[in-house]
Amino acid sequence: MTPADLNAFFKDAFPNGRAIVERADGETAICRLPFDPGSIRPGDTVSGPTMMSLADTVVYALILSRIGLQPMAVTTNLSINFLRMPGRADLIAEARMLKLGKSLAVSEVAIRADGADAPCAHAVVTYSIPPKR
Amino acid sequence: MTPADLNAFFKDAFPNGRAIVERADGETAICRLPFDPGSIRPGDTVSGPTMMSLADTVVYALILSRIGLQPMAVTTNLSINFLRMPGRADLIAEARMLKLGKSLAVSEVAIRADGADAPCAHAVVTYSIPPKR
Amino acid sequence: MTPADLNAFFKDAFPNGRAIVERADGETAICRLPFDPGSIRPGDTVSGPTMMSLADTVVYALILSRIGLQPMAVTTNLSINFLRMPGRADLIAEARMLKLGKSLAVSEVAIRADGADAPCAHAVVTYSIPPKR
Amino acid sequence: MTPADLNAFFKDAFPNGRAIVERADGETAICRLPFDPGSIRPGDTVSGPTMMSLADTVVYALILSRIGLQPMAVTTNLSINFLRMPGRADLIAEARMLKLGKSLAVSEVAIRADGADAPCAHAVVTYSIPPKR
Repeated sequence: MTPADLNAFFKDAFPNGRAIVERADGETAICRLPFDPGSIRPGDTVSGPTMMSLADTVVYALILSRIGLQPMAVTTNLSINFLRMPGRADLIAEARMLKLGKSLAVSEVAIRADGADAPCAHAVVTYSIPPKR
Repeated sequence: MTPADLNAFFKDAFPNGRAIVERADGETAICRLPFDPGSIRPGDTVSGPTMMSLADTVVYALILSRIGLQPMAVTTNLSINFLRMPGRADLIAEARMLKLGKSLAVSEVAIRADGADAPCAHAVVTYSIPPKR
Repeated sequence: MTPADLNAFFKDAFPNGRAIVERADGETAICRLPFDPGSIRPGDTVSGPTMMSLADTVVYALILSRIGLQPMAVTTNLSINFLRMPGRADLIAEARMLKLGKSLAVSEVAIRADGADAPCAHAVVTYSIPPKR
Repeated sequence: MTPADLNAFFKDAFPNGRAIVERADGETAICRLPFDPGSIRPGDTVSGPTMMSLADTVVYALILSRIGLQPMAVTTNLSINFLRMPGRADLIAEARMLKLGKSLAVSEVAIRADGADAPCAHAVVTYSIPPKR
């Protein structure tokens, strides 16, 4: 699936979703989350759950870009460290495939505030891949 | 802080939040997330990010019920395993304090679909506690 | 497999292993690690890797007590939080099954210094179960 | 601290330790673990606990190379994914600093069997840094 395919699928599957797939080539994927004042938490910074959701989404995009439209790929584990507060900014999430096995895919994700060098969060995400019929 | 205090704080801090604190006594906390069709993902089940956000919220409630209104307590690590699909249901998250130190608090969370025995997700969440002034 | 079966298997598979299975009933398992001065780290306390190894072992025991002797059950993910220093003491690890699916088993583990109430470490461990032939 | 300093400290603090610091420059660190038949698990492959211990060690080396000899830096969280079996081989662990804050340091680690391209394990490790006196 291409970024355009993925954005169309996401728009249909997650009508409230706001992340935009900018790249997805089977090995890496990039999603941008435009800043939304509704995602702010105390400290005037984008909230942790917003970053967790973005980490999950960029890995979903990465996996589907590799294996095709298998919507029932599901997250089994997500572990995230919050490193710095992003403030009020678009977030850029970049995922990289660590392993794509028969039943499990493991990817790591770095999230940065747009324009920042240092990541605001780092996640490792495992998906379960549905068996081939 | 009591559940009523926490719900008032959350309403103010997270105008879009929907989780309701039902218990919070410094050692345990329970939050309910009423079902919302907007939280569905493929498979007709409440999405992973919805559960991650709930896990984060119930631990925030637990910690504030113990240390008082310190909004700048922030999540440093969240690790979640998704165990079963909850389907379309209210979610009940129950948190338990594993350690409250000077600078870090670690809690575990079980999330169940309302009425289910087996958890649909299990998380461990670490918050950083701001230093006393 | 019973605790006696498991201890015999472990003795054979891990000649250097020192953990003793005290209980394993398919839902919970308990292993004791006798104190060994060789496991000390700076601070005069049992080291983190010693606790990680014990967490991994007690879950292996738990899973084999449920599914029988399948040595190729392998850990896919282990996440551990170190909560308090155990000092110089036997360690008692207690595991509880959170989910046993067709291909993945998820368990949580609390480790305590012998005689202590509060856990010194808490882990969540996922094993991959080999497919039935 | 230089690699030579770190190897001297490790030899003293962990007489049974076998990992060798090959690089440690405050931003990255590399440790090699020579193959030892005693570290084998069923499947004729280096065991998971061996890799967990190595991940913990390489991050300890990385942090001490940055902050100096502070032996009471302690692991607070370690999360590891096992990706492929390394077989019988030396292991090379490479750590990279994600964040060094006042009280917490977060690093990621890739472990490879010597000569392999793909990692056999990936870990994220958080240490607590003792406060300056």
